[in-house]
Amino acid sequence: MAKDFATRSENYSQWYNDLVIKADLAENSAVRGCMVIKPYGYAIWEKMQAALDKKFKDTGHVNAYFPIFIPKSFFSKEASHVEGFAKECAVVTHYRLKNDPSGKGIVVDEDAKLEEELIVRPTSETIIWDTYRNWIKSYRDLPLLINQWANVVRWEMRTRLFLRTAEFLWQEGHTAHATSEEAIAETEKMLGVYADFAENFMAVPVIKGLKSPNERFAGAVETYCIEALMQDGKALQAGTSHFLGQNFARAFDVQYLSKENKLEYVWATSWGVSTRLMGALIMAHSDDHGLVLPPKLAPTQVVIVPVYKSSEQLVQISQTVKPIIEKLQELGVSVKYDDRETYKPGWKFNEYEFKGVPVRLAIGPRDLENGTVEVSRRDTLEKSVYQLADIENKIINLLNSIQKNLFQKALDFRENMTSTADSWEEFVDILDNKGGFILAHWDGTPETEQKIKEETKATIRCIPLDAKPEEGKCILTGKPSSRRVIFARAY
Amino acid sequence: MAKDFATRSENYSQWYNDLVIKADLAENSAVRGCMVIKPYGYAIWEKMQAALDKKFKDTGHVNAYFPIFIPKSFFSKEASHVEGFAKECAVVTHYRLKNDPSGKGIVVDEDAKLEEELIVRPTSETIIWDTYRNWIKSYRDLPLLINQWANVVRWEMRTRLFLRTAEFLWQEGHTAHATSEEAIAETEKMLGVYADFAENFMAVPVIKGLKSPNERFAGAVETYCIEALMQDGKALQAGTSHFLGQNFARAFDVQYLSKENKLEYVWATSWGVSTRLMGALIMAHSDDHGLVLPPKLAPTQVVIVPVYKSSEQLVQISQTVKPIIEKLQELGVSVKYDDRETYKPGWKFNEYEFKGVPVRLAIGPRDLENGTVEVSRRDTLEKSVYQLADIENKIINLLNSIQKNLFQKALDFRENMTSTADSWEEFVDILDNKGGFILAHWDGTPETEQKIKEETKATIRCIPLDAKPEEGKCILTGKPSSRRVIFARAY
Repeated sequence: MAKDFATRSENYSQWYNDLVIKADLAENSAVRGCMVIKPYGYAIWEKMQAALDKKFKDTGHVNAYFPIFIPKSFFSKEASHVEGFAKECAVVTHYRLKNDPSGKGIVVDEDAKLEEELIVRPTSETIIWDTYRNWIKSYRDLPLLINQWANVVRWEMRTRLFLRTAEFLWQEGHTAHATSEEAIAETEKMLGVYADFAENFMAVPVIKGLKSPNERFAGAVETYCIEALMQDGKALQAGTSHFLGQNFARAFDVQYLSKENKLEYVWATSWGVSTRLMGALIMAHSDDHGLVLPPKLAPTQVVIVPVYKSSEQLVQISQTVKPIIEKLQELGVSVKYDDRETYKPGWKFNEYEFKGVPVRLAIGPRDLENGTVEVSRRDTLEKSVYQLADIENKIINLLNSIQKNLFQKALDFRENMTSTADSWEEFVDILDNKGGFILAHWDGTPETEQKIKEETKATIRCIPLDAKPEEGKCILTGKPSSRRVIFARAY
Repeated sequence: MAKDFATRSENYSQWYNDLVIKADLAENSAVRGCMVIKPYGYAIWEKMQAALDKKFKDTGHVNAYFPIFIPKSFFSKEASHVEGFAKECAVVTHYRLKNDPSGKGIVVDEDAKLEEELIVRPTSETIIWDTYRNWIKSYRDLPLLINQWANVVRWEMRTRLFLRTAEFLWQEGHTAHATSEEAIAETEKMLGVYADFAENFMAVPVIKGLKSPNERFAGAVETYCIEALMQDGKALQAGTSHFLGQNFARAFDVQYLSKENKLEYVWATSWGVSTRLMGALIMAHSDDHGLVLPPKLAPTQVVIVPVYKSSEQLVQISQTVKPIIEKLQELGVSVKYDDRETYKPGWKFNEYEFKGVPVRLAIGPRDLENGTVEVSRRDTLEKSVYQLADIENKIINLLNSIQKNLFQKALDFRENMTSTADSWEEFVDILDNKGGFILAHWDGTPETEQKIKEETKATIRCIPLDAKPEEGKCILTGKPSSRRVIFARAY
């Protein structure tokens, strides 16, 4: 199963693609740019969804569902939004097919042309704010804190499994507030929720920051983001939270009667993460032996493999293992006992290693005699022999320490891969020879950012929220700058 | 909130529509035929999803995700499937918009025409079986037990919230098996899962049966269904499970190497339920006072309303209520304490009655003195005074008895509304004056079924799985029949 599998140093991009396909996470479909998320990949996504959904509900949000189609004219209502989203998209023009008069297959029925084309949603601000107009009349209707789990389509020319696909799954929060302050607080709160999820569930450290105007969401006043660093030194935007000001309320005429009995436009936020997080998760931790999953998102956290020669031995092992499995399940651990006779233990070891199961227990006749079990952890590939006494709590401790270790390892990596550059030469040298995040001064203009991107393919990932004021000179233009921003080449 | 609300006897159809909208379950969107599922409606759907998903997983299924788009040519591969599904559907023909050269808005970019049109999935058999071809090589790859939660689009001309919408949410199971027997067993197993869910969660009794050929799924060898009866005497198909034979395996060339080393076509099933179940749930139990929800699917099972004059009284009530809420939550009951000062108790009583909250507790100063609480149950609208001692277990018992009572009430209704007809006159008389299910003999031909439908709008809902052999004569043609089938007018 792990044959013909590129290593990271040979070809990082190939390694990623091989891993996604061979570990049964996803594959390309018959439809250009659209992926099939396979059961093992989807099981990880379900764990992500469950954790995020709980966080959204704990912060007062409710779920709803809005139509997949958006009338074309809606996109024209918000001036900058149309530029950003209404271009590369799937356009529905007809609502019927008919038998080909020539008798071969089916063709579009030209009599069934829509009066107005429908766009398959690339994001739902427009249809949602068109709906909110009827839901919001008074300050008593605010805040409105709604999230949607949905599929969206953006017609990407170059696609990569999970990282960039024409159709992807995501959640999009859309909230409405009476004041600017409240909307900004919501934008920042949800950025915090995303950062907490990335760090404590995905074990991926992230930097919270603001996007530069060039990278801002089309229609936003301010875009907040979390940025992660992958093992090849490239950045990956893992989530965004937008303060939309009154832009969509004005475009769709959403006003409320304030406590002071005045009509005011509503303030908005939107925020989203997608199946792209799967790409981040895979690239952040996995190695040349296959997938590495943090315990909190692993569909199977512990696998137990019996090692036996006779069926009597298997019976004995199974008897020993049964109460351990039950206890672990009671404690909330997802555990799998693989006693299939069609595969040998060595094959199973490889399989679970490749699939990233955090902890593997192997138990054979000698273990039965000694009251022991062999415990392998996927993150370090270390093996130890544990006494069976209180094994369940030992395993829970081990899962916790794997979770922490993966985060610490990724954090150490990021710190080693974060550099400062004070000149153009230094900047280019780091980009080409080391990669990673580069803290550098920038004169604050979109033109300079654009020029740097054209020359180096590096973009401003974010202006960190915790950036300290520091006087300096722009690495490209030498013009004054008051703080460093983070540059990187990015996914 | 419940003003201008039609009663069932005045106008059942209007009553349903008013209820859906005024109870904040769903509304029509700006896109023809597509609905917005509002937070309260979506919360019920989430409870349905969670219960069903658990049942699917408990029966060995895993979730996955397949593309929303299906190449047009895929539909032509299975001869009867194309007739049933590839006609009224959303067709994507272009992948880009551009600014209108005349400067007004955006238009379709004719240079971005797809070589082959894409259909927004009306159901996913074709794309899934095209994918399974690569997943299934040997008997060791079988069975494949996969489910998908997704949105689908069927371009319906006449739509009704939840019951028939252009876009709807559903799950579709698609399984692959080595033998016909195994596939039939799976088809029947999943029908059983649906029936169990309908009866034990929705509190809606259903009849399990087989569809007649006219009503069979396009591409199926046999379609099993569960049929429910609504309060207006019309039937509603609540779920279907299809035995697809080798039709899709042949159409998409999916073969496996058997244990005997022979290439064989794979056997298939598919099964689905949708947001249509929301319509069934609403129509089965609700009354002229508003929504009635079975406790197992109610987002809020218990609401507690304080009745007070002074803020000291509110403090005392809140103190008394706090440990009750905590205990109920520990016991898994979803409980809401509505101490908002902006609304009066009477308004709140109406609100929760209208929204179908199964149990309402009201507690005032006199209750504090007496150690009592007023308990109202939504199903019967009865009020009682309970002693506070052990109130949590009393409430749990009450929730259980409401769940049972709703089922029993619906079952009694169905039994009263199930008739037998032995002549055409009797059949028409029952249809026009009573409605409900009619057990009648049918000669087994599609022509007769079609003629009955044309003359009366009644269709064969199903051939019940538990039908007893009984010699008789077809109500229309007088030709011999060996058992009764169920006729009804249906949603």
